[in-house]
Amino acid sequence: MSFMPASMGYDRALTIFSPDGKLYQVEYAAEAVRRGWTSLGIKSENGVVLIAERRKVAPLHDVMNLEKVFAVDTHIGATFSGLGHDGRILIDYARLIAVRHRLTFDEPVDVELLARTICDIKQAYTQQAGVRPFGVSLIIGGVDRKGAELVKTEPSGLYFKYYAVAAGAGEQAVINYLEKYYNVKTTVEEAIILGLRALRAALEEPLKVERVEIGYVDVSSKLFRKLSIEEVQSFLEKAGVTS
Amino acid sequence: MSFMPASMGYDRALTIFSPDGKLYQVEYAAEAVRRGWTSLGIKSENGVVLIAERRKVAPLHDVMNLEKVFAVDTHIGATFSGLGHDGRILIDYARLIAVRHRLTFDEPVDVELLARTICDIKQAYTQQAGVRPFGVSLIIGGVDRKGAELVKTEPSGLYFKYYAVAAGAGEQAVINYLEKYYNVKTTVEEAIILGLRALRAALEEPLKVERVEIGYVDVSSKLFRKLSIEEVQSFLEKAGVTS
Amino acid sequence: MSFMPASMGYDRALTIFSPDGKLYQVEYAAEAVRRGWTSLGIKSENGVVLIAERRKVAPLHDVMNLEKVFAVDTHIGATFSGLGHDGRILIDYARLIAVRHRLTFDEPVDVELLARTICDIKQAYTQQAGVRPFGVSLIIGGVDRKGAELVKTEPSGLYFKYYAVAAGAGEQAVINYLEKYYNVKTTVEEAIILGLRALRAALEEPLKVERVEIGYVDVSSKLFRKLSIEEVQSFLEKAGVTS
Amino acid sequence: MSFMPASMGYDRALTIFSPDGKLYQVEYAAEAVRRGWTSLGIKSENGVVLIAERRKVAPLHDVMNLEKVFAVDTHIGATFSGLGHDGRILIDYARLIAVRHRLTFDEPVDVELLARTICDIKQAYTQQAGVRPFGVSLIIGGVDRKGAELVKTEPSGLYFKYYAVAAGAGEQAVINYLEKYYNVKTTVEEAIILGLRALRAALEEPLKVERVEIGYVDVSSKLFRKLSIEEVQSFLEKAGVTS
Amino acid sequence: MSFMPASMGYDRALTIFSPDGKLYQVEYAAEAVRRGWTSLGIKSENGVVLIAERRKVAPLHDVMNLEKVFAVDTHIGATFSGLGHDGRILIDYARLIAVRHRLTFDEPVDVELLARTICDIKQAYTQQAGVRPFGVSLIIGGVDRKGAELVKTEPSGLYFKYYAVAAGAGEQAVINYLEKYYNVKTTVEEAIILGLRALRAALEEPLKVERVEIGYVDVSSKLFRKLSIEEVQSFLEKAGVTS
Amino acid sequence: MSFMPASMGYDRALTIFSPDGKLYQVEYAAEAVRRGWTSLGIKSENGVVLIAERRKVAPLHDVMNLEKVFAVDTHIGATFSGLGHDGRILIDYARLIAVRHRLTFDEPVDVELLARTICDIKQAYTQQAGVRPFGVSLIIGGVDRKGAELVKTEPSGLYFKYYAVAAGAGEQAVINYLEKYYNVKTTVEEAIILGLRALRAALEEPLKVERVEIGYVDVSSKLFRKLSIEEVQSFLEKAGVTS
Amino acid sequence: MSFMPASMGYDRALTIFSPDGKLYQVEYAAEAVRRGWTSLGIKSENGVVLIAERRKVAPLHDVMNLEKVFAVDTHIGATFSGLGHDGRILIDYARLIAVRHRLTFDEPVDVELLARTICDIKQAYTQQAGVRPFGVSLIIGGVDRKGAELVKTEPSGLYFKYYAVAAGAGEQAVINYLEKYYNVKTTVEEAIILGLRALRAALEEPLKVERVEIGYVDVSSKLFRKLSIEEVQSFLEKAGVTS
Repeated sequence: MSFMPASMGYDRALTIFSPDGKLYQVEYAAEAVRRGWTSLGIKSENGVVLIAERRKVAPLHDVMNLEKVFAVDTHIGATFSGLGHDGRILIDYARLIAVRHRLTFDEPVDVELLARTICDIKQAYTQQAGVRPFGVSLIIGGVDRKGAELVKTEPSGLYFKYYAVAAGAGEQAVINYLEKYYNVKTTVEEAIILGLRALRAALEEPLKVERVEIGYVDVSSKLFRKLSIEEVQSFLEKAGVTS
Repeated sequence: MSFMPASMGYDRALTIFSPDGKLYQVEYAAEAVRRGWTSLGIKSENGVVLIAERRKVAPLHDVMNLEKVFAVDTHIGATFSGLGHDGRILIDYARLIAVRHRLTFDEPVDVELLARTICDIKQAYTQQAGVRPFGVSLIIGGVDRKGAELVKTEPSGLYFKYYAVAAGAGEQAVINYLEKYYNVKTTVEEAIILGLRALRAALEEPLKVERVEIGYVDVSSKLFRKLSIEEVQSFLEKAGVTS
Repeated sequence: MSFMPASMGYDRALTIFSPDGKLYQVEYAAEAVRRGWTSLGIKSENGVVLIAERRKVAPLHDVMNLEKVFAVDTHIGATFSGLGHDGRILIDYARLIAVRHRLTFDEPVDVELLARTICDIKQAYTQQAGVRPFGVSLIIGGVDRKGAELVKTEPSGLYFKYYAVAAGAGEQAVINYLEKYYNVKTTVEEAIILGLRALRAALEEPLKVERVEIGYVDVSSKLFRKLSIEEVQSFLEKAGVTS
Repeated sequence: MSFMPASMGYDRALTIFSPDGKLYQVEYAAEAVRRGWTSLGIKSENGVVLIAERRKVAPLHDVMNLEKVFAVDTHIGATFSGLGHDGRILIDYARLIAVRHRLTFDEPVDVELLARTICDIKQAYTQQAGVRPFGVSLIIGGVDRKGAELVKTEPSGLYFKYYAVAAGAGEQAVINYLEKYYNVKTTVEEAIILGLRALRAALEEPLKVERVEIGYVDVSSKLFRKLSIEEVQSFLEKAGVTS
Repeated sequence: MSFMPASMGYDRALTIFSPDGKLYQVEYAAEAVRRGWTSLGIKSENGVVLIAERRKVAPLHDVMNLEKVFAVDTHIGATFSGLGHDGRILIDYARLIAVRHRLTFDEPVDVELLARTICDIKQAYTQQAGVRPFGVSLIIGGVDRKGAELVKTEPSGLYFKYYAVAAGAGEQAVINYLEKYYNVKTTVEEAIILGLRALRAALEEPLKVERVEIGYVDVSSKLFRKLSIEEVQSFLEKAGVTS
Repeated sequence: MSFMPASMGYDRALTIFSPDGKLYQVEYAAEAVRRGWTSLGIKSENGVVLIAERRKVAPLHDVMNLEKVFAVDTHIGATFSGLGHDGRILIDYARLIAVRHRLTFDEPVDVELLARTICDIKQAYTQQAGVRPFGVSLIIGGVDRKGAELVKTEPSGLYFKYYAVAAGAGEQAVINYLEKYYNVKTTVEEAIILGLRALRAALEEPLKVERVEIGYVDVSSKLFRKLSIEEVQSFLEKAGVTS
Repeated sequence: MSFMPASMGYDRALTIFSPDGKLYQVEYAAEAVRRGWTSLGIKSENGVVLIAERRKVAPLHDVMNLEKVFAVDTHIGATFSGLGHDGRILIDYARLIAVRHRLTFDEPVDVELLARTICDIKQAYTQQAGVRPFGVSLIIGGVDRKGAELVKTEPSGLYFKYYAVAAGAGEQAVINYLEKYYNVKTTVEEAIILGLRALRAALEEPLKVERVEIGYVDVSSKLFRKLSIEEVQSFLEKAGVTS
């Protein structure tokens, strides 16, 4: 018994506190995020960029058809790190929230309101028995009447706004790179190149077109779009990360 | 087995008593508050002041857009220490209670009634299975027909009224400072300066404008407002806590 | 394992018996009462007196606005010892029971019926899963068509009638004092002085006006009222307990 | 682990069997009865007698107003041993059953039918999860169209008919005494005296008027009534148990 | 831990299998039957006999009024061994099933259909969580359009038909006796005498009239009746078991 | 603790996986089948044969009236091995499914559809909490528009079709015998004789008429019928298994 | 205790995280897949091929009638590895989803939408208490308006698209073989031969016609069909895997 980890007992039941005031299930869900594939977001002067790593899970995996950057509404995109099945469920929630907002108020949902509503769901999954927390962090980027917004949500239901942010296994390396080179006065194109170089630093190997998905929301048109394979390839070369 | 902490067993199931009559889950939730960011409230002759610390959670965190002092109604503001996701939920409850009161009785809710209703929710989460207590303490300040009121709610569902109060990691240091220098015959301006100095004492490093949010309710107008960045900066300098 | 207390196992699940026929959760809830602030009640010839200790929980706690003696109906008052959040809930129940009785039967509720209804709630919380017992003892005093009544309720749902009774950390000391000096042929004024001296004996330090709340129900008018600060101060001096 | 009692594990969960075919929770509830205040019932030719011990729980306890012998209907009385809060609930059930029977069938309920209905409730509390058994034994006495009836119910939901019976801490001593001196050809008056002497034997100290409550149902009138204090005092003296 | 019985763990949760394919809770419930008072049934050419042992649970227990052989319908009787409270519940179910059958189909229920319906209830209590199995075996005797039937139900929900059968503490001794002396070509009177002698063998002490209850269903009239005390006494003497 | 079996912990809670991907409760339920009485089925050119062993559970058990081979519909029969009470429930389900199919579609249910519907019920009992798996394997034989069908269902909800199959304690011995002597070009009569010899090999003692039940479905008439005692006796002699 | 596996405790309760962010129940369900019979799918230029291994579970098992490749809709087929009873349930869900889509939208469901809906069910079974995850991986092949699609779903609710994929005990060997020899420019006929050779490599013994089932969806006709026994035999010989 003496070799049991100190946290023993507190992590078994759902949604309870440990003596040091922590919710272990939430901490463990965050660990699932830390082991996920890397994703990142960067705000620039004329848009918000989302970049997601994807991996071949088998030699004959059709990785080019694997989606990791998602359109949530015409003006909002999202990506995530962590458990893929949980992520898909939350992306579905996000789309539902956006559609309902349009139907109810006849206007696009604000990015922060979308993030907060997602986080209300996440919080409930940390306080009620019979469910486990979501093991996923969403990075949501969009442009609303307040301008460009970049938000990251935690498994706990916390969310914060960022100029640039990352999640997943490469979070720390990406963050370190961005901290050094990020400049708020930048264009979408520069932000994509910056993001690819940061991802390159995290992965410690050359980036191929099948390894990344890229999307962005344009400030003036308020439209989200994803880059084509050719565009991704072109940016990879401009960023000089293919070797 | 002999190295297990004495509380073993009593903290695993929800909402039960230990042999010494304690509700461990509630005590642990209070520990979550004690590890939270510092918040404080101060009553003055012409208003109630709320000050909250905020922290940069990452180098490119857009901390200036992080809200820690909230308007609950036109005449009531609130801040909190503890789990941020839980705090957000309770702030939402507070706003809902205030709005419902206006709709039902056509008058603003009293501060104490608001606090008690919040605490009835909190108490229920300590007595029923299937949920955990809220890991958050709200500090609610407002002006109602009885005058200025300052209330702090505990995770247990207890609440008390104060002349000046604090919560979070810096609670003890702030309280010690306030006890020494607080005087009930003071103005809002003096209370803000006092609060900033107390917070400075707790943090043991200079305060920057991005590190604090300040709000207050004015006794004569019964209106809550938050200080602008420029006002905060000005008060930081008046208080001499920027270095 | 050999250092575990003998009760191990029986106190974890809700609402079950130990081999010696005890309900441990109920015993532990009673322990919460024994650790609470002291409260007491005394029957006199022309009224029932309720006195409650209160404490400053922080240097700038506005203790004078902390209520520990409550009006339940025009003819009934109550105080309690134990968990404050649980006590507040039961006081609310008491008020609801009293109001409903008036609405249904168009007459004031009897003190014992009120106490029994409260205790039916308490008993249910000791027999059903999914909840914990209430960690609080109510002392209810009132005057109904049968005359003056003084009842104390236990966390188990038991209740007894008394000439004089106490609860909380000072219960034993107060009881010892009352046993020695209590006389049924007494006035409300004498009973207040007796109660303050008994409380003084329990606290082992001088009593200040902020430390006690006092209420009583008058036999002839059947009205409950609480003493003003000035009246409390005056009684403290008459009782000679301020030093 | 080696010092754990042999029953370990079987008594934790509700309503399950131990390897030797016992329901431990029910056995433990019976232990609660065995630790209760003594109560007893005696059938005589012209009536059924119920006698209950009561105790002062505190020096200033108003024990004379503590009821332990209850009217259930005009023709039925009851007393109990065990957990007082559980007993009160079952007495309420008994009264409800009796009233409903009158409303439905326009005639008084039979004593055995009343006892069986109470025991159906008790049995359900031993077979379903989420509740604990009732820790109380009722002794029910009455006169119905079949004549005088005396029934004792167990926490298990079992019930038996008796000529004379006891429950609580003094059960064995009372039973021993009754076995020696009981005679079915007796009057109510003689039965009361016999019962008081048996109780005296169990308590091993003189009986005072505040220590006992006495009620009986008369065979010819089929009416239950409780003795006044003066009558109790008079019987105590006739029985010679006051010293 | 090394002294724990081998079955440890499998008997704690409801309705689960042990590695050797047993349902321990059901086995333990059967143990409750094996510890019960003895009951038996015997088929004869012109009727089915049911005999039940009863015991004095206390010196002044009115054992003559204790019913252990029950009329279920005009053509069916039943007795049981095991937990008396559970048995009473199942007898009530049996009567309800019989009455409903008459109301629905306007004809008496068959004995086997009655037994199977009881056993469907019993089986459900072995497969669903939140309840425990019934700790009782019913012996049901009756005469329907197929003739005389004698069925015994197990706690598991199994039932079998018998020429002669027993349950309870004396099961083995009764069975041994019956196996030696039973003859299918027998009358009700002979079967009663045989049954009393078998019971005598199991109890190993003389049988008194208060110790047994006897009932039987007649083949030609299809009517169940219970023997009067005088009849029982007469049979005891004919059987030569009173000494 | 070191002597605990390796599976410890995984078999206690319902419906969960062990690290090696097994559902222990399902494996244990299969063990209950392996300990059951032997049953078998054999397909022949002109029919499907079902044979079930039955045992005397007591000396005076009326084993000839014990049914182990059941008519499910006019064209389908079934037998089972494992827990008898569970088997009875599933046979009832099978009959209900068959009747409902006729009512809904006005045609007899196919054998495989019947088996699959039974297995959907079984699967649900392995995936949901609050119930245990069924400890029984059904062998279902019938003739539908596709011809003769023989299916065996597992406690897991799996089912397979067979030429010949067995379940229960004698499964292996029966299977070994059948493998050696089974020939698809056979008549019902030959199949019965083969089955009896296989059962004889499993039981290792002579077969008496009371020990077996036999039923079959005829291909041309599509009718299920059970053999009379005389027919069974005749087949036992033809098979030469009576000594 | 020291010999317990490191994962102890985290795998007992449903749907919770381990400290390293894993959902053990999901990992164990995946282990059930890894122990299942091998299945595989291959995309070719003019169709999608599904091949499933099947095994004789007993000597007289009618394995030729065991279905492992299923038609889901006219344009979609599926096979699976893992728990057969769980697989059957999910195949039923798949058919239901396809039928509902046709009824609601009057067009065939897309392969990916079908897979995602199946995976939403699977995800829910990993996040809610009271159920266990599905221990099965589906391989779904079809042709929709986007062309040929091949998807594999995991117990977690994850799904990926592949050019060629396998599941079950032979997954690794099949994958290794396919990686070496797979070419996207291939015909259905070549893909079948390739698949059979890969399966042969995994099984390490000659393939007989009863051991495999084969189905495919044709790109031009968008129709799913299964190969006849003769066709399978012919392909086995062409592939040279029968010896």
